[in-house]
Amino acid sequence: MPVMTPAELWQETGRWDSMDAILFKLRDKSAHEFLVSYTHEEVVTHHARSEILSYRQLPAMVYHFQSKGRDELRPRAGLLRTREFVMKDAYSIDADAAGLDRSYELQHQAYVRIFERVGLAAVSVESDTGAMGGDVAHEFQVLTEAGDDRILICSGCDYRANNEKAQRRIVAVAGGQAAALPSEISTPGISTIDALVASLGLEAADILKTVLLKGKDGEIVAVVLPGDREVNEAKLRKLLDVGDVRFADEADFQRAGGVAGFVGPVALLARVVIDTSVGDRGYVTGANRKDQHLRDVVAGRDFQGERADVHDVREGDLCARCGGALTLRRGVEVGNIFKLGTYYSEKMGATYLAADGARKPFVMGSYGIGVGRVVQTIIETNRDDRGIVWPFAVAPFEVHLVALPMKASQVRETSDALYAMLRFEGVDILFDDREESAGVKFADADLIGIPLRVTVSTRGLAAGTIELKLRNEAEARHIATAEAGRAIADTIRRMREAR
Amino acid sequence: MPVMTPAELWQETGRWDSMDAILFKLRDKSAHEFLVSYTHEEVVTHHARSEILSYRQLPAMVYHFQSKGRDELRPRAGLLRTREFVMKDAYSIDADAAGLDRSYELQHQAYVRIFERVGLAAVSVESDTGAMGGDVAHEFQVLTEAGDDRILICSGCDYRANNEKAQRRIVAVAGGQAAALPSEISTPGISTIDALVASLGLEAADILKTVLLKGKDGEIVAVVLPGDREVNEAKLRKLLDVGDVRFADEADFQRAGGVAGFVGPVALLARVVIDTSVGDRGYVTGANRKDQHLRDVVAGRDFQGERADVHDVREGDLCARCGGALTLRRGVEVGNIFKLGTYYSEKMGATYLAADGARKPFVMGSYGIGVGRVVQTIIETNRDDRGIVWPFAVAPFEVHLVALPMKASQVRETSDALYAMLRFEGVDILFDDREESAGVKFADADLIGIPLRVTVSTRGLAAGTIELKLRNEAEARHIATAEAGRAIADTIRRMREAR
Repeated sequence: MPVMTPAELWQETGRWDSMDAILFKLRDKSAHEFLVSYTHEEVVTHHARSEILSYRQLPAMVYHFQSKGRDELRPRAGLLRTREFVMKDAYSIDADAAGLDRSYELQHQAYVRIFERVGLAAVSVESDTGAMGGDVAHEFQVLTEAGDDRILICSGCDYRANNEKAQRRIVAVAGGQAAALPSEISTPGISTIDALVASLGLEAADILKTVLLKGKDGEIVAVVLPGDREVNEAKLRKLLDVGDVRFADEADFQRAGGVAGFVGPVALLARVVIDTSVGDRGYVTGANRKDQHLRDVVAGRDFQGERADVHDVREGDLCARCGGALTLRRGVEVGNIFKLGTYYSEKMGATYLAADGARKPFVMGSYGIGVGRVVQTIIETNRDDRGIVWPFAVAPFEVHLVALPMKASQVRETSDALYAMLRFEGVDILFDDREESAGVKFADADLIGIPLRVTVSTRGLAAGTIELKLRNEAEARHIATAEAGRAIADTIRRMREAR
Repeated sequence: MPVMTPAELWQETGRWDSMDAILFKLRDKSAHEFLVSYTHEEVVTHHARSEILSYRQLPAMVYHFQSKGRDELRPRAGLLRTREFVMKDAYSIDADAAGLDRSYELQHQAYVRIFERVGLAAVSVESDTGAMGGDVAHEFQVLTEAGDDRILICSGCDYRANNEKAQRRIVAVAGGQAAALPSEISTPGISTIDALVASLGLEAADILKTVLLKGKDGEIVAVVLPGDREVNEAKLRKLLDVGDVRFADEADFQRAGGVAGFVGPVALLARVVIDTSVGDRGYVTGANRKDQHLRDVVAGRDFQGERADVHDVREGDLCARCGGALTLRRGVEVGNIFKLGTYYSEKMGATYLAADGARKPFVMGSYGIGVGRVVQTIIETNRDDRGIVWPFAVAPFEVHLVALPMKASQVRETSDALYAMLRFEGVDILFDDREESAGVKFADADLIGIPLRVTVSTRGLAAGTIELKLRNEAEARHIATAEAGRAIADTIRRMREAR
């Protein structure tokens, strides 16, 4: 699959425009447009519609490793967030939702095994589908303070979710229906929740804040939520189907009839979104007049709007599933998997001939692992003060062969023979044949961190032995020279079996 | 090394502009410019100047596999010429020219071995350094009519050169010095070599043609060569230091005082390049007046200019080295290596501290293999009517394991055990565990072309055997079931040793 994807494919799905802010775009000399591929759903869907004609060819899965480009505003933290990076991405193509469920479960299980094998304690959490579209998604998160994702974890059950997606159990808010109708209160110069709390002697939760935003196609959106809650951008992006949530500008305030600092939902000329945190009770809100608020405002009675969960869940909130307390942890997302469903295939007319003779859209999934950030996270969690301790499955070599010194003819001959024999046995070896001291070579071996170090030395050969030392063990073994090759091959075989 | 290279690095060497026609360029959202890397000399030179401070760190070599982008006007022939492709590129960094000679020779030897191992009969030929700059270059060419390069091969010695670079031995042209001074001849409407030949009863070799071209920075260049010779674009590009050779336009003709169809070198207001084919004798040339030519024009007497080899060498020309006859063959370039010298390091100020305390520029080489075109050429030259016959070194797997049928429990158990055992032995296996007929599975195995096919079948197991068949041999062997694992591992080991 290409690094450069023709614009046409992304125009079919609309992502050419909706994801413009993060795409690297270019033109060739004939003015054809391309993007430096951000991801490959469009390309795979295109191949599927070209190659897969019948249900007999399903299910199918494809994968590749490829460089991706994302015009990130804030590259950070080494390999954690870069503008160019290598991804392993896989795609499943099924005939129906049940097939996708099976493919997704297979991939989910494979991801669990992959992260175990590479030495990462990754947990799978429910996540937002974000720019990928589709219905269901999971991220694999390594919980560490170095991460920039926020993960809610239930103390009572196995519920785990990215805060972009997390839900909570909402307990009915005290206060009941306000009997009184809204009435104005004078609040000169008091335009923040904190100031209202101080001035009126209320809790922040007694106040509704109204956030004016730009929706799609010039629409103005008012999000209404209790004063002690924060808007969750990811949930809003999804609800409003926009790539980026932007605040309303002055012209929008005028069109909507809102007054900055005193904006409220009553009689506002905007699409009103009422967060699920808003209870069935009276609140204080802005009055859309300068220096005025309203009290006893009830959602559904005094203003109308659609209900949606658009608030941040936080530490101490209750699990939506079991009611247990949620804790908030930071995490590094090392993989993510998506049930795309027919999101791409319908937009791109990617269909197959079903068993009943009908044309049906492919039901797809996509599955990604960020290779660079996985490597960085492995190193951060598998090291000691001397260097890296590579998990066997991802070590760049299996054996680090050290000759001491290379210029001694017996050392050289024995090392060369051992190297050749192990290569033919299919063992991956890094051979340190430099003219350096034992201290330098051992320090480099520890730094690089290959699982098994094999040392052929003048002193060892005089005693008839070769030294084997595992990077993650303190003690070395000394094996008779003639048996060393076999012993090394056997050790590697056992490590392969265990990984 | 990145797919996207910042423009700044290519601006330092001037290639940002000089190679504009073939570069994919883009801007990020902050208007920083990048190219989709065409090649990585600039990036490597940049890393070298950042990382290598002292002669003690030299020599150094680096390599990578990476996607490249080239805005080719004419992509063609499958993977032979594409706008995006994967290249293996290596770079050597040395302290001096002698070091580069050693590195270049090591790489040259490695390339010979690589192409042998991957089953390609590639010959190394002298080639133009082209867009890479530098002094010396070799290409590895597989001689085949499918190629679009033209290679001159000497029948008498080991001289082989790309026609972009090939030279020939020029035998003194008969005719001697013309005693007479130039005189005009009337040639109404006769503006081509062919027409002159017909009208004047001459040989094309008796006429000089003068080609007006655009040089660098608005310069007008007149190339003068015998009428039976063709201009070689690559030689001219190098001489004129331009990315592209373009013909002069009407304004250039006016400035130079040339008349289209009757242009000649005498009194022309242009930089004149006299091809080495031009002899010390009188020629017919254009007179720079409509319907007029000159006869008895002698280079060096009647017009001045610099001497340069800018003509095409052709089949039957004489070898510059031994005088033997040259033959012309078509070839596919599968690799090329360049002595860059200080071409990049001087432009980019990439220096190191030498042993004598002076700062000196790195002396560099670059070495490339086009992976896709290598694979295509391997397949074209290693196949039979049933499919690919992969050379062992580049086979996607070592063993193709076929279970017939998978649903028979004994077949399944034996196959699974054999698969696991061979995997732990470090053997790469493709396991065909599909529910397909023997015919389908064998046909697919032949098509894919993995070197060793291993068949576990109900019939075989009943006879106590497992079948081993090499893709490039007609006959199969039948090995006792208990010994099959060992026999397969031994076969693979022998093939690894032989490759």
